[in-house]
Amino acid sequence: MSTYTFESIGVIRSCFKEKFGIPRQPGLVSEAKATLEVAPAFGQIEAFRRLEDFSHIWILFVFHNSLHQGWKPTVRPPRLGGNARVGVFASRSGFRPNAIGQSVVELLAVQSVKDRVQLVLGGVDLLDGTPVLDIKPYLPYSDAIADAKSGYAPQQPDERWPVVFTEKAELSCRKAEEHQYPALKDLITKLLSLDPRPGYRDQSSSRSYGMRLWDLNIRFRFHEETIEVTAIQPIT
Amino acid sequence: MSTYTFESIGVIRSCFKEKFGIPRQPGLVSEAKATLEVAPAFGQIEAFRRLEDFSHIWILFVFHNSLHQGWKPTVRPPRLGGNARVGVFASRSGFRPNAIGQSVVELLAVQSVKDRVQLVLGGVDLLDGTPVLDIKPYLPYSDAIADAKSGYAPQQPDERWPVVFTEKAELSCRKAEEHQYPALKDLITKLLSLDPRPGYRDQSSSRSYGMRLWDLNIRFRFHEETIEVTAIQPIT
Repeated sequence: MSTYTFESIGVIRSCFKEKFGIPRQPGLVSEAKATLEVAPAFGQIEAFRRLEDFSHIWILFVFHNSLHQGWKPTVRPPRLGGNARVGVFASRSGFRPNAIGQSVVELLAVQSVKDRVQLVLGGVDLLDGTPVLDIKPYLPYSDAIADAKSGYAPQQPDERWPVVFTEKAELSCRKAEEHQYPALKDLITKLLSLDPRPGYRDQSSSRSYGMRLWDLNIRFRFHEETIEVTAIQPIT
Repeated sequence: MSTYTFESIGVIRSCFKEKFGIPRQPGLVSEAKATLEVAPAFGQIEAFRRLEDFSHIWILFVFHNSLHQGWKPTVRPPRLGGNARVGVFASRSGFRPNAIGQSVVELLAVQSVKDRVQLVLGGVDLLDGTPVLDIKPYLPYSDAIADAKSGYAPQQPDERWPVVFTEKAELSCRKAEEHQYPALKDLITKLLSLDPRPGYRDQSSSRSYGMRLWDLNIRFRFHEETIEVTAIQPIT
């Protein structure tokens, strides 16, 4: 077998500073936006000509956080409750022989900022700092196979938790929206409604969790079949 | 920007020995089958556990034929008649900064042959000898976006040419089917009906063409709005 060397063409800037809290696939939370900053060597604007005609694009990226952790032949997907094992090639896990990921995301804008190209993306599931290897248009006539049969994960999980904010958290949220993060409440609500806990959680647990968005720590807990946001604190 | 090194996990064995004649996207010709031979280092059968539950899989591969030819910021997609230019990132061209391709193909079988894993694939658009970087299940709930808007290439081209065989070609085809290549006529018919000529062809041309399948040279010409297969010759 042969080895191939690739250079990243850009980097993702997103609100997701850690894995916990990232939607388990792209497209679940439109409000989760990111910027793809294209490296100068690949940033001629003509390389993106007519890309804005496409509503969705593929991002091929490096799972940079799992790059040096190796891989095992089987993994335990969250979809199966985290217990059953499937082959690594039957999963989209980042812990794979070549740590390359592919995500289809919404293309919101192609911008030229000070001679640098930036793509504004929606519905992302990408960690901040993710190195990007390629950008391709999403072609529904070949990429969208509606009748494809998918084994252990036949449907999008449609369970959504109700999310409420304590008075204190509500106040902190409003402040953060005014100062830096418009639509923060909407983003937090959509992300938490998906239940970010690992699949093999103890369902009865009422412990408190923290999810990081940008430089904010979002504290929340599960309480009477509701997710309650208890605090929003800057991380210093 | 950083560089990343990946090792191919396997190789494609297909009927397509050259670029000419390969369908312009996967899924157009189900009869175009291929085998993915997984390298021993990645060929533990448990790494493929439950992959057979999926009807379709993604193949991430290296455009090995365009790897050392560099890239330009714009390309001329066949869809636009080969004249108009679009940005390389608005295309699926193999001549791109990182020569990585992605194809969704039918998964027909997962086989263990003498301790080697082989995947049997249908509807391929992959050159023989293509190095494979990754295999992922196709997940319709996140990968199939039926309402995605695609710019310059909104639909699958549905023009199909009628294909006829001369008596001589018919005879050679039947012989080849008996000896080595069952369903060869069907494959040739489906491939040629898509019109493999480049988009910027001279439409009035009646010249003769050759398309290679395995070790066979398929000779054909355009004649009175029909594609006529004139000869099928072994390449020696």
